[in-house]
Amino acid sequence: MSKDKKMVREITPQQEDFSRWYIDVIKKADLMDYSPVRGCIVFKPEGFEIWEMMQKELDSKFKETGHRNAYFPLFIPESFFQKEKEHVEGFNPELPWVTEAAGEQLEERLAIRPTSETMIGHMYSKWIQSYRDLPVLINQWANVVRWEKRTLPFLRTSEFLWQEGHTAHETEEEARAETMQMLDIYREFVEDFLSIPVIVGQKTPSEKFAGAIDTFSIEAMMKDGKAVQAGTSHYLGTNFSKAFDIQYLDRDNKQQYAYTTSWGVSTRLIGAMIMVHGDDKGLVVPPKVAPTQVIIIPIGPASKREEVTNKSMELMNGLKQSGVRVRMDTRTDQSPGWKFNEYEMRGVPIRIELGPRDMEKGQVVLVSRISGEKKFVPQDQLNEEVSKMLDEIQKQMYDNAKSFMNSHFNSVETIDEMKAIMEKQRGFVLAGWCGSEVCEHQVKEETGATSRNIPTVVTEHKGKCLVCEEPAKHTVVFGKSY
Amino acid sequence: MSKDKKMVREITPQQEDFSRWYIDVIKKADLMDYSPVRGCIVFKPEGFEIWEMMQKELDSKFKETGHRNAYFPLFIPESFFQKEKEHVEGFNPELPWVTEAAGEQLEERLAIRPTSETMIGHMYSKWIQSYRDLPVLINQWANVVRWEKRTLPFLRTSEFLWQEGHTAHETEEEARAETMQMLDIYREFVEDFLSIPVIVGQKTPSEKFAGAIDTFSIEAMMKDGKAVQAGTSHYLGTNFSKAFDIQYLDRDNKQQYAYTTSWGVSTRLIGAMIMVHGDDKGLVVPPKVAPTQVIIIPIGPASKREEVTNKSMELMNGLKQSGVRVRMDTRTDQSPGWKFNEYEMRGVPIRIELGPRDMEKGQVVLVSRISGEKKFVPQDQLNEEVSKMLDEIQKQMYDNAKSFMNSHFNSVETIDEMKAIMEKQRGFVLAGWCGSEVCEHQVKEETGATSRNIPTVVTEHKGKCLVCEEPAKHTVVFGKSY
Repeated sequence: MSKDKKMVREITPQQEDFSRWYIDVIKKADLMDYSPVRGCIVFKPEGFEIWEMMQKELDSKFKETGHRNAYFPLFIPESFFQKEKEHVEGFNPELPWVTEAAGEQLEERLAIRPTSETMIGHMYSKWIQSYRDLPVLINQWANVVRWEKRTLPFLRTSEFLWQEGHTAHETEEEARAETMQMLDIYREFVEDFLSIPVIVGQKTPSEKFAGAIDTFSIEAMMKDGKAVQAGTSHYLGTNFSKAFDIQYLDRDNKQQYAYTTSWGVSTRLIGAMIMVHGDDKGLVVPPKVAPTQVIIIPIGPASKREEVTNKSMELMNGLKQSGVRVRMDTRTDQSPGWKFNEYEMRGVPIRIELGPRDMEKGQVVLVSRISGEKKFVPQDQLNEEVSKMLDEIQKQMYDNAKSFMNSHFNSVETIDEMKAIMEKQRGFVLAGWCGSEVCEHQVKEETGATSRNIPTVVTEHKGKCLVCEEPAKHTVVFGKSY
Repeated sequence: MSKDKKMVREITPQQEDFSRWYIDVIKKADLMDYSPVRGCIVFKPEGFEIWEMMQKELDSKFKETGHRNAYFPLFIPESFFQKEKEHVEGFNPELPWVTEAAGEQLEERLAIRPTSETMIGHMYSKWIQSYRDLPVLINQWANVVRWEKRTLPFLRTSEFLWQEGHTAHETEEEARAETMQMLDIYREFVEDFLSIPVIVGQKTPSEKFAGAIDTFSIEAMMKDGKAVQAGTSHYLGTNFSKAFDIQYLDRDNKQQYAYTTSWGVSTRLIGAMIMVHGDDKGLVVPPKVAPTQVIIIPIGPASKREEVTNKSMELMNGLKQSGVRVRMDTRTDQSPGWKFNEYEMRGVPIRIELGPRDMEKGQVVLVSRISGEKKFVPQDQLNEEVSKMLDEIQKQMYDNAKSFMNSHFNSVETIDEMKAIMEKQRGFVLAGWCGSEVCEHQVKEETGATSRNIPTVVTEHKGKCLVCEEPAKHTVVFGKSY
C-alpha cells in the first residue's frame, strides 16, 4: 500500500535502539498494523503469509505423527477454571469475560479461552471410556486471548493465533514420550525451517505452565541478547484428568485416570524470526518460510523493456515449475535501485537482476540477501543455482544465528559475575542452581534475568548455586526475556 | 472412539423424522459433540477434516483470483457498531459482550465479532489513501459468534467458523464485478466440489445483509425440501466507506469514497452437504471433499490374513501414490460385515474388498457408496478404475441432488396454490411478486416460507404477484429455510 512510499520511513539502526528498529521494520515491511482494541494487532497479508507458511509445515508434521485437527469452543464457563487450582491462579489475572449476550445478563460468566485444557478436558471425559479409546491425539489451530499489561506486536499481544495440541494416554511413559516428541518436532521446525538455534530444556517449577507437572521449552536468543520462549510442551500427568474426571477402564478392567499432555507454538514465532535474523536493512526471511523466495527485477532502457520482460517471464515460469516461490516486479514508476532496497527491506532471500547485457551473455545476476554476494549464472542453469543458493542461505542463516548465540553465552560461578556480564554484555548465562525459589528470585531481582530452562544437553555441570553456594541441583540457563 | 460401538445407536429413517435422522447421523459418524456452552459445538476430527478439505479448495480459488489472507481482531468496540445504522440494527440483538477483563470493568464494551465489516472498514480507512492502493482484496478465515435463540449443529451455532472476504475498489462497476465473481466461485465450488446444485440469485431487500446495497446468494435444497443459504456475496456500495471514512484520492486528484464488497461461506456447508446427500444408512460424502475416499477391507480366514493384508497394503500404496485418499481397516475384533456397515454409515465413497478368492483371480471388489454396485476389477487396473468410479460418484451425486431439487420445485400463480403445495409436498416454489414487503410478509405468515432469492436465470417470468395480483416486479423462489 502506497502510504509508506510517501512517508519514506527510515529504519532505526539496531545498535541505536533495538526496540525502535523492530517496530520500524515490521511497519515498513507492512507485516502488521495496530488495531483500535488494546493490545490487539492486525496481521496484514505480508505478515499473515509467513504464519501460513509456518502452519502448513507444522500441520503436516503433526499429521505425520498421527494427530488430527478439531475445533473447540472459544468460550469457557467460569466454573471450569475453578477445577484446577494452579490453572485458575495462573490464568485468572489475564481473562476477559463475556457477561452479557443478546441483551441479557448471562447466568454464568464466560471466559474467552486463554488456552483450552479445561474445555478439552471436559470433552475428553465424555469421549474416553476405555483403554481402546486411547491415545487421543488432537490439535487445534485457534485464536486465544490473554489480557496482557505490556504488549509488543507478534511477541506479546492480547489476542494471538496458535496451535494447541492436547493428548491423552494410558500410561505416564507414553504421555512423557509424547511430550518429548512434540518438543523435538518444535526444535526441528524452528532450527531447520526458521534457521533459529534453540536451547532445549525443562522449565524450573516457578516458570512452568499453570497446572503442568513438567514444562519443557525451546528458547531462542534475539539479536539484543534477550530470550524468546519459542515453543512449550507440557506433561500434565493426571492433574487435568482428576480435575475433569478423564477416567478409563484399563486392560485389567480397573478405572484409571488418563495421562495428558499439551503443547503449543504461536504467532510470536514471527516476532522471534524477525529479531533473530533482521538487520539494519530490514527483514531477512529464511527461504523455507519466505512467501516470496525470489524476486526478479528486469532492468535497462525502455527500448529493451519488452525483450527483457519476456525473458524474465520465461525464467520466472521455469522457477515456478521447479517449485520456487517467485515474483517479478515490472513496475515502471520505480527505479531498479529503489526496488533493490525495497525487497532487501522485505527480506526476500534472492534477487534476480536481468538487463540487456545479461541477455547478450545468456546470464542472470543472483544476489543473496544475507551476504550481498553477486553471482553470474547461465540462464540454463538458473533453477539449480537458485535451489542451491536458497539452501545455502537457509544454512548460513542458521550458522550466523548459532555463532551469535555462542558468542553471547557465558558461564558463571557467582551472581556478582553474572551481574557484571549482564550489565556489559547482552546474552544468556549458564550457572549452577540449588533448586530453591529464593535463590531464583534473587537472580531476577539483582540481574533482571529469569531462568530460561534447565538444558537437556549441557557441556558443563556446575557444582555450586550461583547465589547461596550450596551444591547445585541443576545447571540452568538464565536470560532476560520477552 | 469406542463409545458408539457399545451403544449401537440406530439411525432414524429420514421419512420418519428428518431432524432426528440428521442428529443421529452426525453423532454416529462422530462429526461433532455438544459443548457445555449454549449453542456451541465441538467439531470433532471426522467433522473438522471435511471443513479442512473445503478450506483448502476455497483458499486456492481465492488466491488464484488475487486475494490474500489476513487476520483482524476478534473484539469490536461498541462504538463501531453505531456507525452503520442498518448494520447495528441487524446484529445488535445477537451480540455477546465482553465487559470485564483482567479484573477490571472496561471503559467501552467489546463485542465478539459477528462479522468484520466494521473493524475492517476502520482499518481500510487508514490503509487506503490513493487510487494506487486499490483494489484491496483480503480474505480472513476466522471464528465468529452470533448468539442465536435456536441452534442446530453445523447449520446454526452460536460460534461458527467461516471465511469473510472484504474488498475495496475504485468504481461501482469493479465492486459489482467482484461481488458477482465471488458468488460464481461459491456456486462452482458448491456444485462441483460438494455436488450440490444451487439456485443463484439476489436476495429481496428484507432478506439482505444488514448494511448491504445488494445481497446475492446461492440456495440449496435439503432432502426435507427446506432451503439452506449456502453462501452470500454482498455489494456494499459506499455504505461502509461513508460510515468508516474510506476515502481515496482518485486519478483526477479528487477525494472519493471506495466501493466495497464482502462475501462468506461457513461451516454450515458441512450441514448442507449432509442433508443433501445423506441417506438412511448414514452419511454420503462427495469424493472431492471426502477425507477418506476409499476404504480397503481385507477379508477371509486367519490362515490367509498375512497374505491378504500384504496385498492390500501394496494396493493401498499404489492408490496413495496416484493421489487417492485411502485407508485400510485391518482390525481383527470386528467382522467384515460390521466394517461394511460402519464405512457406509461414515459415507466413504468407495469400499474395496479383498479376499483369498480375489487374490487367486488377481482382482478386487469395488463397491460404490451411492449405487451399492459391485465391480470386479483386475488389480493392475485398480488406480484407473478407482479414479473413474470417484468421478462417476461425484457426478452421480450431483445429478441425484439435481433431480431431487427439480422434482420438488413448483411454479404457482396464487398464494392458495402455494399453501396447498407447501402442505402436501416439501420443496421450493416459484412465484411472481410485486415487490412489496407486505405481500412478502403475508407469504411467510400463511405458508411458513420466505423468499430465498430472485434467481439470476429463470425459465419462466411470472406476470402477477401471488398475493395482491398486481403486476409482478420479480419472479421469486420461496421456501422454508434453516
